[in-house]
Amino acid sequence: MTQSIEQKLRAIRQHMADQHLDAFIVPRADEYLGEYVPEHNQRLHWCSDFTGSAGTVIILKDRAAIFTDGRYTIQVRQQVNADFFEFYHLVDTPHVGWLSEQLPAGATVGFDSKVHNLNWYKTSVRTLSEKQINLVAVTQNPIDLSWTDRPTPTQHMGLLLDQKYTGLSSLAKRQQIGAEIAKQGANASFISALDSIAWLLNIRGKDIHCFCVILGSAVLMQDGSMTFFTDLAKIPAGFAEHVGEGVTVLAESQATATYQSLGQQKLTILADPETSNAFSLLTAEKAGATLIAGLDPVATPKACKNSTELNGMQQAHIRDGASEVRFLCWLENEVAQGKLYDEGFLSDKLTTFRASNDLYVELSFDTISAAGSNAAMCHYNHLNGKPATLPMNSIYLVDSGAQYLDGTTDITRTVAIGTPSDEHKKMFTLVLKGHIALAQVKFPVGTNGSQLDVLARQFLWQQGYDYDHGTGHGVGCFLNVHEGPHRIAKNSNGVALQPGMVVSNEPGYYKQDGYGIRCENLVYVADKGLAHDGKKFYQFETLTLVPFDLNLIDTSLLTKNEVNWINNYHAEVKQKISPLLTGADLAWLEQATRHI
Amino acid sequence: MTQSIEQKLRAIRQHMADQHLDAFIVPRADEYLGEYVPEHNQRLHWCSDFTGSAGTVIILKDRAAIFTDGRYTIQVRQQVNADFFEFYHLVDTPHVGWLSEQLPAGATVGFDSKVHNLNWYKTSVRTLSEKQINLVAVTQNPIDLSWTDRPTPTQHMGLLLDQKYTGLSSLAKRQQIGAEIAKQGANASFISALDSIAWLLNIRGKDIHCFCVILGSAVLMQDGSMTFFTDLAKIPAGFAEHVGEGVTVLAESQATATYQSLGQQKLTILADPETSNAFSLLTAEKAGATLIAGLDPVATPKACKNSTELNGMQQAHIRDGASEVRFLCWLENEVAQGKLYDEGFLSDKLTTFRASNDLYVELSFDTISAAGSNAAMCHYNHLNGKPATLPMNSIYLVDSGAQYLDGTTDITRTVAIGTPSDEHKKMFTLVLKGHIALAQVKFPVGTNGSQLDVLARQFLWQQGYDYDHGTGHGVGCFLNVHEGPHRIAKNSNGVALQPGMVVSNEPGYYKQDGYGIRCENLVYVADKGLAHDGKKFYQFETLTLVPFDLNLIDTSLLTKNEVNWINNYHAEVKQKISPLLTGADLAWLEQATRHI
Repeated sequence: MTQSIEQKLRAIRQHMADQHLDAFIVPRADEYLGEYVPEHNQRLHWCSDFTGSAGTVIILKDRAAIFTDGRYTIQVRQQVNADFFEFYHLVDTPHVGWLSEQLPAGATVGFDSKVHNLNWYKTSVRTLSEKQINLVAVTQNPIDLSWTDRPTPTQHMGLLLDQKYTGLSSLAKRQQIGAEIAKQGANASFISALDSIAWLLNIRGKDIHCFCVILGSAVLMQDGSMTFFTDLAKIPAGFAEHVGEGVTVLAESQATATYQSLGQQKLTILADPETSNAFSLLTAEKAGATLIAGLDPVATPKACKNSTELNGMQQAHIRDGASEVRFLCWLENEVAQGKLYDEGFLSDKLTTFRASNDLYVELSFDTISAAGSNAAMCHYNHLNGKPATLPMNSIYLVDSGAQYLDGTTDITRTVAIGTPSDEHKKMFTLVLKGHIALAQVKFPVGTNGSQLDVLARQFLWQQGYDYDHGTGHGVGCFLNVHEGPHRIAKNSNGVALQPGMVVSNEPGYYKQDGYGIRCENLVYVADKGLAHDGKKFYQFETLTLVPFDLNLIDTSLLTKNEVNWINNYHAEVKQKISPLLTGADLAWLEQATRHI
Repeated sequence: MTQSIEQKLRAIRQHMADQHLDAFIVPRADEYLGEYVPEHNQRLHWCSDFTGSAGTVIILKDRAAIFTDGRYTIQVRQQVNADFFEFYHLVDTPHVGWLSEQLPAGATVGFDSKVHNLNWYKTSVRTLSEKQINLVAVTQNPIDLSWTDRPTPTQHMGLLLDQKYTGLSSLAKRQQIGAEIAKQGANASFISALDSIAWLLNIRGKDIHCFCVILGSAVLMQDGSMTFFTDLAKIPAGFAEHVGEGVTVLAESQATATYQSLGQQKLTILADPETSNAFSLLTAEKAGATLIAGLDPVATPKACKNSTELNGMQQAHIRDGASEVRFLCWLENEVAQGKLYDEGFLSDKLTTFRASNDLYVELSFDTISAAGSNAAMCHYNHLNGKPATLPMNSIYLVDSGAQYLDGTTDITRTVAIGTPSDEHKKMFTLVLKGHIALAQVKFPVGTNGSQLDVLARQFLWQQGYDYDHGTGHGVGCFLNVHEGPHRIAKNSNGVALQPGMVVSNEPGYYKQDGYGIRCENLVYVADKGLAHDGKKFYQFETLTLVPFDLNLIDTSLLTKNEVNWINNYHAEVKQKISPLLTGADLAWLEQATRHI
């Protein structure tokens, strides 16, 4: 029987009372602290009905509150029952600060140390202790104790990814990262990010929708040996031979003992306090370990694709580009015949084209298929309500991608449906000019993404426009479609762009209740030999191969250099995609990539 | 009798022995921790002969070492005797880390807590304590005890700056900043930066060459009352009336007792650990004060010029521009007659033009007058050796500025001497294109300088060139020619550009042993009413009014938009400067600002 929110809160509060807790904190994250949370770990959703991708719930004895950001101001009020929850903006009203003002000195706040990172814990314990409020790690999560119809975890068998796709053996990777751990003065490192573990072991999984990883955690020693804690049933035959010497697989229940053992050996452990849960770090530290805070040592090597991975990414983008071209050709013909489909049908159609590709595994994220004014919401999901039908004389935004054995894709195209307005064309062209400026830049060694961000925004800014999201995110190779440590955004993260890093180039413009525009290609950082005074300069090479809609370009706003870039890009698209097409699709591509 | 370095070191080591010190650290800074150090406080120069603007000396019992950065690698070896000093690069070999490796556990290192900031102390005491080395604040500086021919401090009388130049009374400023101190939860703030004190009290001085301040320090209370520690002989008649109620002036020797009293009252004190010396902070803390680390509360209000200050800056730039134009006209005529002067003569000539201006006080920094390949050194000073004579068919770089009662100027022009080469023209044009891109940008509220920096570099980068300095620094109003908290540079400091902030726009290019190019104007941040979705956009308005040398521009590299910018700028220069010129100067200006 499904429990109501009222029943759920009552059950949770009973368990809180049993544990003498005055409050309990429920973040969206689970013990893997990733961007995606598998269904059986969606504790915040279960107790509140909120489906957004960021938020925190605090349950007190007789009240509860939910904290979300500006993206979800409307959605949270639609999904969450105001009879049981108060609503707060998590930036204006940080949840721990709020909590410290609600409770008297001496109160006890419970938290599950497995679902918070170490940085959160350290900051929160300080804030609460200033008011003499105790922050106590629970041994049994009141949500888990109350969740009677909790889904069982997935049981998908892991996949051993061939070295022809990874370019490097697990052993070689582990030894390389082990040496880096030693260089940083540590004996071992916690490897918590699921994509880091998958990359290190050259394995993939299906435990999270669109995210090809196996749930688990790991410890990597400086000699490259590794202990992987996971559901043993997911380890396929041939695993030991595949990963090479030095890998031990244990059940997740064994992890605590291992953390304690590391501490008892007085080891120094490198751990990323942002990506590692507080439980593992505190357990090891309590047992005697010394912690060094640092970036996940796998993050940068994983981000800098080797030549095999880059080649795979290029091949995947040729196949993926052909599917997107088939879809755009089909769409144009249907619209020309007056057939205006809804967003869901369009999304499914595009997936059908993609799914027929060689080496296709699954989508890399839920397609954003946004008609007319829906595209003004950057993260629109047509499944959240009734999918809209394409209006005539509008623009359609489709942001989509796939996981292939040899690479990951992520592309946004914005296309005219019928006849676009002058405003549509002007704004599309301003966005495209920014895309081109970023695509063409050359930059010295040491440059980070935030230094380049303005190039994509400058033409919008010049007329008083902007977009409220980053310009580019890292992308994995048959891995997470959002990966670090680099990015291109207004805020600096100080990580220099290095050869082999894949990043999206996706400026946009969103007019509320009007329309949305985004021009997104994936690119990678390349060293093409440019240097001056011994200092190297890098540049981007484009991976994505799909025409931009010429019907949306106002050429009067373009410089000769920009026109040349478009013509050169389209010539490359035609050259690489044509061999995969025939008939009407091929004719459409030739027209779509015509010289302007 | 002048002491030799050997004699000086012997004397210092005797005082170190008396104080049981195994090492003594001598930074370049004095107790005011500013960019400029008055002659009587140049301890590092006195004990080493090094004249550079950054460095540290460490004196051990039988060795000494000097740590400098990449700018001074050559100069330090020319100036400092290798018989007595070892040379290190301060980035590759941080001085405290080096020291910790030279001394045994139990050793004692002396430092003068008045000449180091708190951050340095906290970091250093941690590094040294890891090796069980003691860091001890001396009560008598061994340098001061050894310095027999120390210059006496200057005795210039302070100047009361009229409100027609400041726009705001001292009382109003102090109350405004006092409220900000209260808002940050503090009872008081140490105001250590000399320009912050001068701005708060609407006074100026001549205690440091080019830097119109009075030496001293201050404490500002949250009610706006202020205690100023300085040489009482510098306080002019009418001071009390000028500054208004609530200002107490005490001798510097009284400061320690005041710091202790603040502590005894258990006050919470806001202090900038980068600009405040360790002595004042540690004294107050030891006596019971609670310190809050934060940016100097005067920095941002001082940087955001009010309308009176902006008007003054504009007026100063008109007069200053006319002098620079007279100089450039004179220079062109002399060169045309085959008269090629040396850098020193040119610098003095330019100063003569400036010094005749109304409201002129002094130069705002030592003029960089660099002929031919000397300009390849960004911070070249012709007084460090024999000034070079202008070569024919070269380019000359002159970076100069002045302090006027109503404002401060800082301009660099690079001009052709004879016939420039195609390379000169190409590189000048690439630099100018960057200058124009930055001059024209519009940007949303919240944007900081590091986000804009690439605009000035992009055209150089595209061809594999760069310049190894920031793009822009803040500038005071009849105050420091380098001021914070904002800047335009590769490294982010997170400070948003706000209306009224003055900043330089000075991209350059330097070819080693070849030539140097820099195009520098001062600009200020203006709100011209552009907004979108309720978000304001700002832009720069140019203050500097002097033509760029059209002989150095390769118009084939310019876009139509860039040509328009140059023509519009030159039209404005002509319109505003012409009224101050006559005869040949006026004719020169008309030719120099002709439409291209």
